[in-house]
Amino acid sequence: MERKEALKLVEKQLTKKRYEHTVRVMETALALAKHYKVNEKKIELAAIFHDYAKYRHPEEMKRWIIEEKLPHDLLDYHQELWHGPVGSKMIEREVGMRDPEIQSAIYWHTTGKRYMSMMDKVIFIADYIEPGRDFPGVDEVRSIVYEDMEQACWMAARNTISFLMSKNQPIYPDTFQLYNENIGRNMNG
Amino acid sequence: MERKEALKLVEKQLTKKRYEHTVRVMETALALAKHYKVNEKKIELAAIFHDYAKYRHPEEMKRWIIEEKLPHDLLDYHQELWHGPVGSKMIEREVGMRDPEIQSAIYWHTTGKRYMSMMDKVIFIADYIEPGRDFPGVDEVRSIVYEDMEQACWMAARNTISFLMSKNQPIYPDTFQLYNENIGRNMNG
Repeated sequence: MERKEALKLVEKQLTKKRYEHTVRVMETALALAKHYKVNEKKIELAAIFHDYAKYRHPEEMKRWIIEEKLPHDLLDYHQELWHGPVGSKMIEREVGMRDPEIQSAIYWHTTGKRYMSMMDKVIFIADYIEPGRDFPGVDEVRSIVYEDMEQACWMAARNTISFLMSKNQPIYPDTFQLYNENIGRNMNG
Repeated sequence: MERKEALKLVEKQLTKKRYEHTVRVMETALALAKHYKVNEKKIELAAIFHDYAKYRHPEEMKRWIIEEKLPHDLLDYHQELWHGPVGSKMIEREVGMRDPEIQSAIYWHTTGKRYMSMMDKVIFIADYIEPGRDFPGVDEVRSIVYEDMEQACWMAARNTISFLMSKNQPIYPDTFQLYNENIGRNMNG
């Protein structure tokens, strides 16, 4: 699918603000894909469709989780975590995009997980650092992402967990496992 | 087993400082056991023996983990987490203390977990708040522990995770699950 067609499909699903975010994620992800030698065509599509399910009604997403046999424990966590897994299925059923690598990157873009592929990592981190983002710690991640992708993902996970804990929010086990995954390299004591 | 005999057995296993900590945990735990109507005799023994394995050589603890078929993933985490599980087995083999409730409380006293028994919780939190402790946030936990044990354990887990993250240390999954367990009551947003 061409970029133009993909963007058009996704534009209908999103708010204007979210669509602009999507374009920035695409640009950020493409630059990273060049650097890390990941299939740019796939990265482009994964980035364009990463938030495809974002504005579906929670009840609809819930149905998809049940009918597509996505992990049931998603329902115990904030619905903000549902649109990645659900989107990975929706683009297959609604847009005919069946590509396990692209679908995996969309699936994991919010929570991250252990053992991400480089394509997963590029989408996960592009979503986190695109120029519109302004989280505490995001500049530090931007400053190392071209040198050390694993460290960048680890820092993003760490920052996300800190943020969620400061709001007394639950943390999805995969995010937490991503934090633990790279801990060996970051031990102080 | 009488308190005196138990204390004598444990004194040989510990440094003087750690023995004094043990006595304070016992006193704190007994006061909580009275309040929460938990078997005081068992709480006394669980508190006395909770750090029984603390000063064994890591290689010895490793052998116990393997030979007693304790969860193998313990070996991936800091050895500070080993003495609870190992101690729960050592007191059975070396002291003849075979009581699943006492052994469970010893097993989980460092990490905590979801679905702790009240006895588990009393030992977990007594170890955290005994008067010699001076962690950030410990006074807040002390101030609510007689009103709301679940909240106290949740805060202890949250504080521990924050502390470990600030040191770039791994977090044991059960601690993290204890944090997530009580999150429903603590959501801000």
